[in-house]
Amino acid sequence: MTEPQADALVADLAARARTGARLLAAVSTATKAHGLAAAAARIREHRDAILAANAEDLARAKAGGLAAAMRDRLRLDAARVDGIAAALDAVSRLPDPVGRVIDASTRPNGLALSRVRVPIGVVAIVYESRPNVTADAAALCVMAGNAVILRGGSEARASNAAVHASLAEGFADAGLPADAAQLVPVADRVVVGALLRASGLIDLVVPRGGKGLVARVQADARVPVLAHLDGNNTSFVHASADPAMAEALVVNAKMRRTGVCGATETLLIDRAYPHAAQLATALLDAGCALRGDEAARALDPRIVAADEADWATEYLDAVCAVAVVDGTDAAIAHVARHGSGHTDAIIAEDAGVAECFLAQVDSAIVMWNASTQFADGGELGLGAEIGIATGRLHARGPVALEGLTTYKWQVRGRGQTRP
Amino acid sequence: MTEPQADALVADLAARARTGARLLAAVSTATKAHGLAAAAARIREHRDAILAANAEDLARAKAGGLAAAMRDRLRLDAARVDGIAAALDAVSRLPDPVGRVIDASTRPNGLALSRVRVPIGVVAIVYESRPNVTADAAALCVMAGNAVILRGGSEARASNAAVHASLAEGFADAGLPADAAQLVPVADRVVVGALLRASGLIDLVVPRGGKGLVARVQADARVPVLAHLDGNNTSFVHASADPAMAEALVVNAKMRRTGVCGATETLLIDRAYPHAAQLATALLDAGCALRGDEAARALDPRIVAADEADWATEYLDAVCAVAVVDGTDAAIAHVARHGSGHTDAIIAEDAGVAECFLAQVDSAIVMWNASTQFADGGELGLGAEIGIATGRLHARGPVALEGLTTYKWQVRGRGQTRP
Repeated sequence: MTEPQADALVADLAARARTGARLLAAVSTATKAHGLAAAAARIREHRDAILAANAEDLARAKAGGLAAAMRDRLRLDAARVDGIAAALDAVSRLPDPVGRVIDASTRPNGLALSRVRVPIGVVAIVYESRPNVTADAAALCVMAGNAVILRGGSEARASNAAVHASLAEGFADAGLPADAAQLVPVADRVVVGALLRASGLIDLVVPRGGKGLVARVQADARVPVLAHLDGNNTSFVHASADPAMAEALVVNAKMRRTGVCGATETLLIDRAYPHAAQLATALLDAGCALRGDEAARALDPRIVAADEADWATEYLDAVCAVAVVDGTDAAIAHVARHGSGHTDAIIAEDAGVAECFLAQVDSAIVMWNASTQFADGGELGLGAEIGIATGRLHARGPVALEGLTTYKWQVRGRGQTRP
Repeated sequence: MTEPQADALVADLAARARTGARLLAAVSTATKAHGLAAAAARIREHRDAILAANAEDLARAKAGGLAAAMRDRLRLDAARVDGIAAALDAVSRLPDPVGRVIDASTRPNGLALSRVRVPIGVVAIVYESRPNVTADAAALCVMAGNAVILRGGSEARASNAAVHASLAEGFADAGLPADAAQLVPVADRVVVGALLRASGLIDLVVPRGGKGLVARVQADARVPVLAHLDGNNTSFVHASADPAMAEALVVNAKMRRTGVCGATETLLIDRAYPHAAQLATALLDAGCALRGDEAARALDPRIVAADEADWATEYLDAVCAVAVVDGTDAAIAHVARHGSGHTDAIIAEDAGVAECFLAQVDSAIVMWNASTQFADGGELGLGAEIGIATGRLHARGPVALEGLTTYKWQVRGRGQTRP
């Protein structure tokens, strides 16, 4: 496919989406919820067909030499299909953000002002491997009144098409617009470029996947992007930390699942913390390799030397950088210099120190005495998430229904003219 | 100046700004307010020097053949300098958005969540002519805790330098960071390009000025932009409109000031409105040229024929496009097709019809029985504005202190690990 052909395809998809979005913006909460629940029912009904499509993708992936980790992300089984349906049901029960009044006031001249949440419009999702994103992204976008254009990875094309067919049936059952959720019908990567430059046609692009994908989207997009590139998260153990709590939190933050974006990648230990060796040993014993600065290496002979790059590395593996720092200010400075603005935590019993960390660390999510692995829309009460944003505008941290809306001003007068 | 030199200059300005922003983020409301009030006092103190610098700019502008309208925007007099100081004082009294809790909740596992407003960080303003923007933009940015890089037009360089010198003195009086508000020290336009591509160094660019400037910024920026390109605003007179109110509103919306972005540029008249000829005559008698479709031209022989381009034109002049439409749905469709998403109004006594218009018109500001010229941060209760945004993300409509902040999540736990 040539670039002009891809641009034409995207223009057509976006025009259909715009019409779908206009219709969706006026749809009642009950109808949207009904559409999502009906889609969940269709997913369950077509479970065998979805699994057959997935088996086709998996066979092609294996033949094509796709890495085992990627194939694991691609793999569906009955439980995972049920999980897709359950997520649709869960989103259908979330409160509808559209129409919510953010604030309202009356001016001295009698003009009544309000800011009201409205859908963003047309959202494109560019993602890899996991077929559940097809349903999750569509559910969140549609519940927030947006039309969505889904561009999944070519490795998952049969699975995505099968999931999308169930969604389309469910949406039709509820009378939702046919173009509320469109799947890009061709696998050619040139379409991604066309989506990214469709300024004015597409209102927002959300990339989900590996760092290569996200970096490409951030570099090339002429359309606004919500995403995070890195989750280079830090847990800082202050001198006042409770040692048992520190050990439990650090091991959980690093090792619960090492491949998620909320995993801790750097451990900072206050030089005045009396139980540093025990902490390092606990992580090592949990199977984590440690790369330390000189002071950290003195804690345990198994700790190898870190180099400068380690402080900025998101390992997504059972590896952690460890540094000993001189107190909270040094920890805050370390995070400001090396962190990625995703999720950073302090472990401390001293509330004053903790509040200082919460105030001064400028990341999307800042935590006190909690595991960084809680960085997740569901865990933070949003019911679901379309992704986590580390940019500074619009939405920060986990993005769900509210982040998929914008607002407009409504002004109600009685004939006021401006002097 | 070469592009690499401009990039190096911007990198240096941005690094200073980042340090300034880190310091500013922790400054108390009282200190920020003190800094703005002290800057206002310094502006008043240096009024003669500011006027002398402005005279220098005006002389160079006249010699260089700058258009009279641009020279008028550039011109300061004693009252305008006092106005600059008064605006600084006004912003100093606005409520501080930083630290405000947007929402808070406790999860079933006991994690206490809150979302707290924080500054965006480093904001760049690219503007033309009006020296008051130097002070207005700096005041809003600093009050919201941001460091600002000011890039004014070369035609106003002496005036901007004089205003900036007073700001710097006032900020120093209050102990605000020296790099809270930096003026780009060279007039070379290549610096604008360097600002626009300083992704990661600058968090937000706000262009203020003519369409050429805004279009260039929107096309070239790799940094997020808040702006509006067009204010192609519509006033729709519904069949149920009160004729005296309609006349007063339409004449005010179009003619109060024709050069502002909130001016009405298209008048839509419901075919069932009985007083259409009287309305057209009132606008014509107020000195407005009308360009109409066939039905509109039948209202008054002075109305000339509109062509397709008129519906999308922001005249910023005593000219208005007029069309007769078949009811509210047709008016909404006209706005969706031709409008620029800035400010659109319905004039109607029928509340049901008006609410339908308020709900369905997807513009930053939608009005009922009010003049579109109220599209202004001050008039909409924000105390001031750094600009009006017609994009869909982050902030929409007038942007002031809240729009110059973002938020972070704060999570307070008691040692919770994620299962």
